[in-house]
Amino acid sequence: MTQDAIASAEETRTGVWLVGARGSVATTAVSGCAALVAELLPPTGMVTETPAFADCGLPALGSLVFGGHDTANTPLPKRAEELAAQGVLPSWLPAAVQGELAAADGRVRPGGPVPGDTRAPEELTADFATDLRSFARATGVARTVVVNVSSTEPEPAHGEWPASSLYAAAALQAGCAYVNFTPSTGLRHPALAALAESSGVPYAGRDGKTGQTLLRSVLGPMFAQRALAVRAWSGTNLLGGGDGAALADPAAAAAKNAGKERVLADTLGAPVEGEVHIDDVPALGDWKTAWDHIAFDGFLGTRMILQTTWQGCDSSLAAPLVLDLARLLARAHERGLSGPLNELGFYFKDPDAEGSALAEQYTRLLTLADRLGEPR
Amino acid sequence: MTQDAIASAEETRTGVWLVGARGSVATTAVSGCAALVAELLPPTGMVTETPAFADCGLPALGSLVFGGHDTANTPLPKRAEELAAQGVLPSWLPAAVQGELAAADGRVRPGGPVPGDTRAPEELTADFATDLRSFARATGVARTVVVNVSSTEPEPAHGEWPASSLYAAAALQAGCAYVNFTPSTGLRHPALAALAESSGVPYAGRDGKTGQTLLRSVLGPMFAQRALAVRAWSGTNLLGGGDGAALADPAAAAAKNAGKERVLADTLGAPVEGEVHIDDVPALGDWKTAWDHIAFDGFLGTRMILQTTWQGCDSSLAAPLVLDLARLLARAHERGLSGPLNELGFYFKDPDAEGSALAEQYTRLLTLADRLGEPR
Amino acid sequence: MTQDAIASAEETRTGVWLVGARGSVATTAVSGCAALVAELLPPTGMVTETPAFADCGLPALGSLVFGGHDTANTPLPKRAEELAAQGVLPSWLPAAVQGELAAADGRVRPGGPVPGDTRAPEELTADFATDLRSFARATGVARTVVVNVSSTEPEPAHGEWPASSLYAAAALQAGCAYVNFTPSTGLRHPALAALAESSGVPYAGRDGKTGQTLLRSVLGPMFAQRALAVRAWSGTNLLGGGDGAALADPAAAAAKNAGKERVLADTLGAPVEGEVHIDDVPALGDWKTAWDHIAFDGFLGTRMILQTTWQGCDSSLAAPLVLDLARLLARAHERGLSGPLNELGFYFKDPDAEGSALAEQYTRLLTLADRLGEPR
Amino acid sequence: MTQDAIASAEETRTGVWLVGARGSVATTAVSGCAALVAELLPPTGMVTETPAFADCGLPALGSLVFGGHDTANTPLPKRAEELAAQGVLPSWLPAAVQGELAAADGRVRPGGPVPGDTRAPEELTADFATDLRSFARATGVARTVVVNVSSTEPEPAHGEWPASSLYAAAALQAGCAYVNFTPSTGLRHPALAALAESSGVPYAGRDGKTGQTLLRSVLGPMFAQRALAVRAWSGTNLLGGGDGAALADPAAAAAKNAGKERVLADTLGAPVEGEVHIDDVPALGDWKTAWDHIAFDGFLGTRMILQTTWQGCDSSLAAPLVLDLARLLARAHERGLSGPLNELGFYFKDPDAEGSALAEQYTRLLTLADRLGEPR
Repeated sequence: MTQDAIASAEETRTGVWLVGARGSVATTAVSGCAALVAELLPPTGMVTETPAFADCGLPALGSLVFGGHDTANTPLPKRAEELAAQGVLPSWLPAAVQGELAAADGRVRPGGPVPGDTRAPEELTADFATDLRSFARATGVARTVVVNVSSTEPEPAHGEWPASSLYAAAALQAGCAYVNFTPSTGLRHPALAALAESSGVPYAGRDGKTGQTLLRSVLGPMFAQRALAVRAWSGTNLLGGGDGAALADPAAAAAKNAGKERVLADTLGAPVEGEVHIDDVPALGDWKTAWDHIAFDGFLGTRMILQTTWQGCDSSLAAPLVLDLARLLARAHERGLSGPLNELGFYFKDPDAEGSALAEQYTRLLTLADRLGEPR
Repeated sequence: MTQDAIASAEETRTGVWLVGARGSVATTAVSGCAALVAELLPPTGMVTETPAFADCGLPALGSLVFGGHDTANTPLPKRAEELAAQGVLPSWLPAAVQGELAAADGRVRPGGPVPGDTRAPEELTADFATDLRSFARATGVARTVVVNVSSTEPEPAHGEWPASSLYAAAALQAGCAYVNFTPSTGLRHPALAALAESSGVPYAGRDGKTGQTLLRSVLGPMFAQRALAVRAWSGTNLLGGGDGAALADPAAAAAKNAGKERVLADTLGAPVEGEVHIDDVPALGDWKTAWDHIAFDGFLGTRMILQTTWQGCDSSLAAPLVLDLARLLARAHERGLSGPLNELGFYFKDPDAEGSALAEQYTRLLTLADRLGEPR
Repeated sequence: MTQDAIASAEETRTGVWLVGARGSVATTAVSGCAALVAELLPPTGMVTETPAFADCGLPALGSLVFGGHDTANTPLPKRAEELAAQGVLPSWLPAAVQGELAAADGRVRPGGPVPGDTRAPEELTADFATDLRSFARATGVARTVVVNVSSTEPEPAHGEWPASSLYAAAALQAGCAYVNFTPSTGLRHPALAALAESSGVPYAGRDGKTGQTLLRSVLGPMFAQRALAVRAWSGTNLLGGGDGAALADPAAAAAKNAGKERVLADTLGAPVEGEVHIDDVPALGDWKTAWDHIAFDGFLGTRMILQTTWQGCDSSLAAPLVLDLARLLARAHERGLSGPLNELGFYFKDPDAEGSALAEQYTRLLTLADRLGEPR
Repeated sequence: MTQDAIASAEETRTGVWLVGARGSVATTAVSGCAALVAELLPPTGMVTETPAFADCGLPALGSLVFGGHDTANTPLPKRAEELAAQGVLPSWLPAAVQGELAAADGRVRPGGPVPGDTRAPEELTADFATDLRSFARATGVARTVVVNVSSTEPEPAHGEWPASSLYAAAALQAGCAYVNFTPSTGLRHPALAALAESSGVPYAGRDGKTGQTLLRSVLGPMFAQRALAVRAWSGTNLLGGGDGAALADPAAAAAKNAGKERVLADTLGAPVEGEVHIDDVPALGDWKTAWDHIAFDGFLGTRMILQTTWQGCDSSLAAPLVLDLARLLARAHERGLSGPLNELGFYFKDPDAEGSALAEQYTRLLTLADRLGEPR
């Protein structure tokens, strides 16, 4: 980063408020941002660092100020060490960015509701919004983007307030842009629809597209464009870490699987036979393996098969997208955009707008980049 | 097909001249075309039968008249039975389309050069062109598209005339549109460049994109769009049949592999480490298995891996594309288009024009469909 | 087969009574036996046709006489044609063995209980035993082996009589040797224990080992012998056909999965983390795909992974083992052996005796071959 | 380790002389041995630490003294850090065993021949033998086992002395037991046959069985025991590290592949169609991926496929076997055994004795354990 950029970053700083601020994704995002600012590593996996985004006025990585909510107590520097031991972060990185991690950890406020919490939903929302305002005041950021990166919730019972929606409501109250990177309800709660529309802030979601569904969003269109008839698309996901445990609960997995199936139905033109399993395999730690088996018919009904095996690290796949989204939402907010940012389907399994083919989503993302970069 | 379409097909018929007319791809194309005309099977795998191509004036499948060159003697009905025994064609199909196969076989002329052939290249070309003109006269077709679907040739020595180029020259001489569906030289012979340009016919090639490279043309862009750093892309192809034997020869495989590597270099932005093997495995018959192993880096250099296994039937993948191309070239010829049809990159590993990402190639194909359908 | 063997086969014939006589496995076994007797195909997959079994006095394939129970009405020749259309049988085979299929079909008796059946369990058993005795009388076979190859039942409620146990009881009543090739209860019903012991007939089971578990029974010992620490063994099975639908019911899958897990616990020395999924994928027909993902630790805790993908045809894998078992049980019966044949663990997921490593099971099978071949 | 064991280790110490002492395998073996002695990690992957070997009088790990030859200069502590950065060793291990690594490194002598070396083969051998005797004198070890773990050599031209054979000859001259863990020639040089026989030392080889071939040695027997007909067994190995580069040279790969093919021919009863590729993929570092594709016929010729993907760390797989072999050879030497130890086929791709099925090899290994443990 040049000296000029640093100066500009000092002038206008942007808040990134992570719901689930001490989780793996948040820890990787904060560590990674610091590593890139210090030029310790190249920005692999960050779409907003590619040339197409050079001129759209995104906040510099060095201008991002991290804070967040969490119900966990393990501080970020310690979490970073745990991730390094698993190979998610380079072994030398936690020490190199220890200061930035500690600073962010100092800005983490208690989340909720915790067991025994007697606060009503409105109180919790109000408390969260107060935290957001205090953060902005204390750090002097020009605006804040709230990003939900906490563990997936079970689908809420009818009429109930899931925690993710309370945080989302707090973001609206505090005038913050909002991103839901998880399959949890967030802003999609029916009681928040009107508020979201009138809030004047931009938002995006939901459920970051990091592995199996990313693949499906390029393979589905391929079968469709070639007029090959997919007869069954089956998948198994093995993952450890917190998300493995959360998603092995069928109720929590339901929302995630809905997103996966939507991609296939959208790109193939009709729903397709086949199940998706999510297994909790603690031995895999933060790594996940997704196996897909696609039975399809070719010319004259000849039966063929494609199999894919994706072995990735969940936090490493998610963290750069979280940074991308925080920057894009901050810039959109600055430019006065509000409501759902339909051009961000590229990032999500279950996006706000139609269309699940990755290539088209990428094209739309580039049009957003153009809009963000236009002189006002 | 409606009665009108049949009537129109009778009025204007289109020749499809297959170089390698008794091979697996040709046999599957002729059998399949007959099966679709008789509505025995749905047109799976035929892109030109999707709604996007309904209004672009393509010749009806029922209007196609097949002939071709081959050095082999096994007649098409017998080849169809062999393919049915391998599961490439439904077991009942050869009997059902026996008449059409026999008719096409009756229009096959001896190819060349055969061992001991003393004809000079110009003589061979002239003989082939004569065959094309005789075919047109005998069948009354309005125009003919020559499609090379013969076994892959070794790369020719400098200054030598490979057979595929002699057939291509004959097509130009006889005023026929030309498609090179193989990695052989065909129209890309330096001595044919001027002739091709002045011929006034449209042409397209080369090397049909039917499996591993098709996959690569959607996966490569995915990695690029997500800014993931591919470190090594390795592949192994197992195939039996004639192509397995031909391509196990490193000289013959060279052209094919160049196409595969071009896709990666194009879509990833730079050449990437990794080898491609082609093994002849006669036990697989007409089936092929392609395994790809892609080592890539995510955020902060985390190492991840994608593997794909594609198990397909080569002839079933190729045949509908051959029919697509014959129809598209015939219509282009009818509309007066000439020279390389750059919008057909969708079909080829090593296309005439730039750009290897499937999604973009599909978009360009749709623009061609629009042009072909416009009122003159 | 020599003339002598044919003569001997005529003198002493052996009954093979298939419960589920019109299913895929039975159809394949009957068709295949006829094809081998006529020397139309080599005996691939039949262990009892290898040299180690040449001298143990097994009944010749040509001496086997098939009959059975079924609740389905589709006759065997028709089922064989359906299987040939799916590629399970060679397309020419049903016609070639039409006579043998029709003869066997003529000996199929109605199974039960069918919906609306008012017979008590004892009555059903008595009726089934009567069928067995009539078969023996009509055909003149020296003895009969009853083999359960019907679809997997749900695990029965406490105190209930599953159909498989009624058939097993009938076998004992009629003095027939018995094999349970499925995960259903069969002879393992607590109320049959005393009867089985006193019956004087040999029996074996349960749940034929044909794919994923076969693999596990060689891979498990490999990890154990090399002192590698398996941390999680996960698996997904995709299968169409009747068994896919039956096993997609978690209650029916429970017994099957117990067998699979037993193999791992036995060979690895302790139960291991990891789930097994069974998906019904009708598009696969009689074919099944089993994917296994094994996460293991090497020296100093280094994490490694083995994946296997097994693509097989269930009936083709099962049928030769059914013929093997019928021959082995018939010979054991002839030699006066009775009770569980502990040396047959080689064939089963959930065998009667200890020990799940395939190599040891094979060694024990060879000792049985020796015993069967000894002069009395 | 108890104090007694330490005392005993002090009384009788055993030398382990590693040819290639600064390579990945050697570094992992020395680091790992120290980690196990200090009880920092469990002995995963060490067969000689399983109960079956408890009473056969093997030297304690704490009694092993490491030295060796190498032409490389990077000291062992530095190599260990490099391996830890790649995830081959736990990140904390190099620091924890720094003393032991430095001590071993101090006993490394220059290998040869190096470029420009003018010593004749006999001189090199004599120099190496002198190094072995000096090591024994300096450390007071009771006996030394020489283990070749250097990079694979190209197959030597006729009459030439490959370096591996010079080291092997030196071991014989110095009265040391010898293990060839690589596919290089070593003791199999025709000119060493008589010397080996008369030397009075035990020896074993060659080519440690650590991945693809290990799998093949359990899968091959499975197909044979089930009478399934393997039609083609194809494989691709991707590996980085030094061995990747060495084996990408077809001449060097020839010996290795011969071992792999031998396993299949031995266990299946006849050679089988199919190629094996070894690709150098530096991006994989010390990790290797082996993909196997096995096309086989079941009953009635039905075609089926098994695929395996093995992702392992070469050094982690090899190092515990190197420690096993050093202990077994030392004990055998102590017990007066000499000549090829035929019971060690379990460890090798290309063993001295017949028989390639892992289960049988394991049984033979246990008989050796019994012999070694017998009172004299």
